[in-house]
Amino acid sequence: MNEALRIGVAGLGTVGSGTLAILQGQAELLAARAGRRLEVVAVSARSRTKPRPVPIDAYRWYDDPLQLAADPALDVVLELMGGEDGVALEVTRAALAAGKSVVSANKALLAHRGGELARLAEANGAVLAFEPAVAGGIPIVKALKEGLAGNRVRRVYGILNGTSNYILSTMRATGRDFADVLAEAQALGYAEADPSFDVDGIDAAHKLALLAAIAFGVEPAFDQVHVEGIRQVAATDIAYAEELGYRIKLLGIAEATDHGLAQRLHPCMVPATSPIGQVEGVFNAVVAEGDAVGVATFVGRGAGDAPTGSAVVADLMDLARGHRSHAFGVPSATLATARITPISERRGAYYLRLTVDDRAGVLADVATCLREQNVSVETMIQRHRATDQPVPIVLTTHEADEAAMREALRAIAALRAVREPPRALRIETL
Amino acid sequence: MNEALRIGVAGLGTVGSGTLAILQGQAELLAARAGRRLEVVAVSARSRTKPRPVPIDAYRWYDDPLQLAADPALDVVLELMGGEDGVALEVTRAALAAGKSVVSANKALLAHRGGELARLAEANGAVLAFEPAVAGGIPIVKALKEGLAGNRVRRVYGILNGTSNYILSTMRATGRDFADVLAEAQALGYAEADPSFDVDGIDAAHKLALLAAIAFGVEPAFDQVHVEGIRQVAATDIAYAEELGYRIKLLGIAEATDHGLAQRLHPCMVPATSPIGQVEGVFNAVVAEGDAVGVATFVGRGAGDAPTGSAVVADLMDLARGHRSHAFGVPSATLATARITPISERRGAYYLRLTVDDRAGVLADVATCLREQNVSVETMIQRHRATDQPVPIVLTTHEADEAAMREALRAIAALRAVREPPRALRIETL
Repeated sequence: MNEALRIGVAGLGTVGSGTLAILQGQAELLAARAGRRLEVVAVSARSRTKPRPVPIDAYRWYDDPLQLAADPALDVVLELMGGEDGVALEVTRAALAAGKSVVSANKALLAHRGGELARLAEANGAVLAFEPAVAGGIPIVKALKEGLAGNRVRRVYGILNGTSNYILSTMRATGRDFADVLAEAQALGYAEADPSFDVDGIDAAHKLALLAAIAFGVEPAFDQVHVEGIRQVAATDIAYAEELGYRIKLLGIAEATDHGLAQRLHPCMVPATSPIGQVEGVFNAVVAEGDAVGVATFVGRGAGDAPTGSAVVADLMDLARGHRSHAFGVPSATLATARITPISERRGAYYLRLTVDDRAGVLADVATCLREQNVSVETMIQRHRATDQPVPIVLTTHEADEAAMREALRAIAALRAVREPPRALRIETL
Repeated sequence: MNEALRIGVAGLGTVGSGTLAILQGQAELLAARAGRRLEVVAVSARSRTKPRPVPIDAYRWYDDPLQLAADPALDVVLELMGGEDGVALEVTRAALAAGKSVVSANKALLAHRGGELARLAEANGAVLAFEPAVAGGIPIVKALKEGLAGNRVRRVYGILNGTSNYILSTMRATGRDFADVLAEAQALGYAEADPSFDVDGIDAAHKLALLAAIAFGVEPAFDQVHVEGIRQVAATDIAYAEELGYRIKLLGIAEATDHGLAQRLHPCMVPATSPIGQVEGVFNAVVAEGDAVGVATFVGRGAGDAPTGSAVVADLMDLARGHRSHAFGVPSATLATARITPISERRGAYYLRLTVDDRAGVLADVATCLREQNVSVETMIQRHRATDQPVPIVLTTHEADEAAMREALRAIAALRAVREPPRALRIETL
C-alpha cells in the first residue's frame, strides 16, 4: 500500500466532526478503496477542550489554523471554518501557496474568491476541491465536472438551501405563515438565530455561483447573482400555488441565454409534479440540463455532519487516488468572465396577487395596465365576497419580459383601488 | 497541450453513433476540459457503408473488431457491440491484454464476466470502465465509486430499464393491458421485436449486478440475482395499486442483510409519493442509501444515443485526465464472493389479489391459510357484485417472510373457491 494521505483539519464544527467520524469509523474501508490510508495528522479549532462527538487527542493540535496550514507534514488541509474572508481566506491561501491541496466547505469564500484561489492552487501544483460546499452529500460538483463532462450545459438549477425548503414545505403542509414557521425552525435548531443567510437566499446564491462556474466555465461571481429570499412569501401565495398546480420553491437558476449567462436565486412557482416540485423538507436537489444527457436530477441531504462529511471524504478519496482536477473543471486561466444577462431580461410567466377594493371597474383597470406592457393573462382567480373588505385577485400571465412586467406592476400599484403592494412570483417551466 | 487520447470504436449502432456525435461536435470543449484532445483513430462495425448519422470516413476502418483491438495506435477501445460473450468478449480481452483501456457499454458481458475482465485489466495496467453500461446518462457508476466513496452502502436500488418503466407508466396512464401497451411500444420503436431482455428483467438484472458489485465490493454475479419480469402485471393490479397509494415499478434492489447480500429484480409496489414512485416513462432512477449520505437519488435518461454517449465520453474524459480507477472501486483481487441471501429470506409486506367464488366462508378460508403461516392482513378490498361471476379479493399484509408467504399462497391456490392462481406482489418500503 502507498504512503498515507496526510490530512489537517481546520475547523471542528458540524462538518469537521462529521468528517472525522467517517475517517475514524471507516478507516479500513477507505484504505481498501483508495489504496492508501487517509490519515488525520493535525487539527485546529477555537476551543481544544469543548466536548465533541469524536476524539481528537490522537492528533497534533494547533490553536492557530495558519500554523496548521504551514505544517510541512500535511498533504491536504480541510477548510471547514467558514467565513467569506478573514482567517478562512488566509488559511486557504497559505495552504495552497505551500503546495498543499485544500478541500473547502466554504461556499461564501469560494463564491467571492474562487477564481483567485483556483489560480493560486494551479500555480503551486495543488488541488482546490469543494464538493462539500455545494448541496451537502450530493456529489454534484463531481457530476458536473466529470460525470457530465461530455455535455454543453444549457441550464443548471436547484434547491440549494435546506432550511428555506424546510420552511416553505412546512408552510405548505400546515398553512402557517413564514414568521411562525421560521420561529419553530429556530427552536428546533433547523434555522440559525440569525437566519438571513438561509432565508434571504445568500447561502443558496453562493452555491449557485459555484455551480454556474463549473457548468459554464466562468469565474464564480457572487455579485452577479440576482438574489431574493423567501421572507415575502405569504401563506396565501402558497395556497394559491397549490390551487394552480404549482409549488413555491427557492430556486437557484443559471442558464445560457442569447445574450449571456443569467444567474438568479429567488422564490418561484414550479409545477407541483416536476421533480423539483416534489423535493420537500431539508432535501436539496440539482437538475442539470445538458445537450447530450438531457435532464439529470440529483437529490439528497444538503447539510448536516454526516452528509457533508461524505462530500469532504469524496474529495479526499480523489486526492488519495491521485485524481487531480481543476477547481472549476478547466484551467483557471481559461475561465471566462461571463457576460451577465440581467434579471430585467428574464422572459417567462408570472403569478400576481393583488388586494383590491371590491368594486366595478377594478379588473378593467388592472387589465389595461398589463395590456399596455403587452402582458397577457392566462388564468385569473377572483372570488367575490359579500363584505366591504378588500378582495384578492390572483392571476397568471403568459410569457412576458421582466422589464415590462415591472412597468405593469408599477402602474397597477398606483391604481387607487389597489390597497396593498402587488405580490409577484416568477413561474418557471422545468 | 498533452498528446491526444487515441480512441478506437468497436460497434457503430445507437451508442456508437451517439458517442461519435459528441466527440465530433464538442471536440474543442472536451479538449479544453481534459487538457488534451479525444481523437477517434479507428472504427469497426458490421457494415462499412450503412447510412449513419455521423461521418466515419476520417477514421481507419476495420471489418474485424479484433484487428481494431490489436491496433497499436490506440490508447482505448470502446466496446459498444453488446452480447454476453462471443466477439464482444474476445475484443475486450484482446484490448485489455494488450494494455489498452476499455470503455464498455456491455452490461451483459460485465454482469457475467466483470470479475475476470477487471483482473485482466489490472494485470495489464489498463482501465476497464463502464459508466454507459448502467442507467444510460446518469453518472451513477462514478457516484458510487467516487462521489459516495466515504459511505458504507446499505442498499442500492432503482428503475434500471426504461422500456419496462415506459410500459408500466403507460399501463397506469391508460388502464390498458400489458400485451396491448407492449405492442404499441414495439410499433413506436421503444421496445425490441424480441422484448424479453427488457420485459423479463434480464437487462435490468445485468445492471443491478454491476451496481451491487460496486456498492458492496463483490464480484458481479448475474446468476445470483433473483429475476422476475413484468409480463404478469395486470392492468387491474395497477389500478388497485393506485387505490392503495402505490405504484408498480420494476425495481432492482441490492441490500446488505443480516445473512448476506440480497440481489433481486422484480415488479413491486412502492409508495406513489416516493422519489422512485414518481419516476415515469423511459427515465431511469437509482437510489443509494449510505451510512453517511443518507438517501441520494439520481434520475435521468437510461438509454438513447446521446445520453449513453454522454456516459461513454465521461469515461473517456477520466482516461484523458489520467484518472484511473479499479473497475469495481477496489482492486479486483479484494472483490469478495457475496454470501447470497436468497429471495425466500426476503422479509416485507405483500399485496395479494385473489379471484374467488362469491360465497360465504371464502374469506375465512383465505384468512386461515394466511394465519397458519403467521401472515397478518393489513388492508382488504372486497366489493360484492350482484352476479354469479367470481369476484376479486385484494389484500395487503404486514411484514412477513417470503417463504411463509409462498406456503400461504400454495394453500390459498388449493382452496376450491379460488378460481385463478393468486397474484402476489412485494411491497417495498423506500
